[in-house]
Amino acid sequence: MKLLRYGPIGAERPAILDADGKLRDLSDVVTDIDGSAFSPEGLAKIAAADLSSLPLVDGKPRIGSAIARPGKFLCVGLNYADHARETGKDIPEEPVLFSKAPTSLCGPNDDVEIPRGSDRTDWEVELGIVIGSRAKYVDEASALDHVAGYALVNDVSERRFQSERGGQWIKGKSHDTFGPVGPWMVTKDEFDDIQNIDLWLDVDGERRQTGNTKTMIFDVAFIVHYISQFMTLEAGDIIATGTPPGVGLGMKPPTFLRAGQVVTLGASGLGEQCQLMVQA
Amino acid sequence: MKLLRYGPIGAERPAILDADGKLRDLSDVVTDIDGSAFSPEGLAKIAAADLSSLPLVDGKPRIGSAIARPGKFLCVGLNYADHARETGKDIPEEPVLFSKAPTSLCGPNDDVEIPRGSDRTDWEVELGIVIGSRAKYVDEASALDHVAGYALVNDVSERRFQSERGGQWIKGKSHDTFGPVGPWMVTKDEFDDIQNIDLWLDVDGERRQTGNTKTMIFDVAFIVHYISQFMTLEAGDIIATGTPPGVGLGMKPPTFLRAGQVVTLGASGLGEQCQLMVQA
Repeated sequence: MKLLRYGPIGAERPAILDADGKLRDLSDVVTDIDGSAFSPEGLAKIAAADLSSLPLVDGKPRIGSAIARPGKFLCVGLNYADHARETGKDIPEEPVLFSKAPTSLCGPNDDVEIPRGSDRTDWEVELGIVIGSRAKYVDEASALDHVAGYALVNDVSERRFQSERGGQWIKGKSHDTFGPVGPWMVTKDEFDDIQNIDLWLDVDGERRQTGNTKTMIFDVAFIVHYISQFMTLEAGDIIATGTPPGVGLGMKPPTFLRAGQVVTLGASGLGEQCQLMVQA
Repeated sequence: MKLLRYGPIGAERPAILDADGKLRDLSDVVTDIDGSAFSPEGLAKIAAADLSSLPLVDGKPRIGSAIARPGKFLCVGLNYADHARETGKDIPEEPVLFSKAPTSLCGPNDDVEIPRGSDRTDWEVELGIVIGSRAKYVDEASALDHVAGYALVNDVSERRFQSERGGQWIKGKSHDTFGPVGPWMVTKDEFDDIQNIDLWLDVDGERRQTGNTKTMIFDVAFIVHYISQFMTLEAGDIIATGTPPGVGLGMKPPTFLRAGQVVTLGASGLGEQCQLMVQA
């Protein structure tokens, strides 16, 4: 299933993509595309709904973040060996973990703000894991039982704020609109192999990132297991799993986003995003 | 006003301390002690309530976290010069910022779990700022307008997870129960000078930390202003403002918590906490 949210910012309604690629309003089935909808019970309720009886959504509404504001918006850093190398870092022995402020979440095609004082706003196409049920001290073998599905994420990053303002990355990861998620939350049953997903990102139509989740250092199951040793994951949480090579920081010379530029990105089975850069 | 939450974990009810120190149930006035209650309108509604007409709370219920689960549980690191020195770090030129998982939040007297595999669980008494209204790019002069009040926080920390597992502190700050908050959210009008608050912490009755917010490197107004340059603060968010000297990591030799030990802490005007350490 491909679940999504549509409508004005802060007033999104739940929806589902039907077999013909049309949007059907899900408001009569679930209140939002959130932790409650991602629980095994919530997903079963949606799966049991007769889509043809649900209202068709008119026109071309704004698409919101594929998931409602999460309790935790976590990210794994340096999870592709070649990306670690381009940023000049060692390949990590265990996942590097950081968080984005949940307020950074936005729709897949919303304008992305370049923060005031920023000269190093950068892009990162990523596979996002959406948690479906509580996970604390789960083993690797059962970790995927706690995953509801996946969504495309652009982990927008301000490199100076991330690295030169005290060392904790959250400052460079948390500006409003630094977390486009969607267009869809795609349930895990739609993927034969989540470790074989193509990812790409363009800036003004020029290819910048190309990758595949098969070159991840730590795979989805390990990441969920690993994080659950440090904190409790809950339904509705999202984990961005790291970016393949091709970020602006790794270009020679390093190249960053300017207001007026357009970033497009996509992943196989997860849809596409398109963001206009604007000055905050 | 001193606002609080009482009742079983996950089923807390809002309450207020009356002039006689008795608990009055606030359920008829607000749904929870959260961002909605902390807004100027929410606080005005509580202030206008006739406390003597509100139901007295019977017995000695469990006290929950003074605030409901926040959108952001942020912390400033190394904000007391003498604490920075005891941990072997330089005095920061600007606030070090990190986050705790909101799932770490717990009541002031709940048992605190020592994570599996931990041998460096440590204590940190702190002043917590509770945000009352949205703050994005606010200047220092108006920053306090966005503060609803304050609460006592124990920023429980696992030092190996914090520093030796990839460098981003969130791993050592986010275990369940690593964020006791309360007993009260005290509205800012109750403080003549928030930069003159005594803080203390004992382990098994022996004094470990003694401090005063007057020796903070960055004060409350600056912290709110500063963070709002990187992300948008919202009503109900909490910011722990750093700890004075006396943490276990700074002792000679370094000394950490073991199951069965009891941590007590307090701050002038903000009440006291008492936590039994248990093994996760």
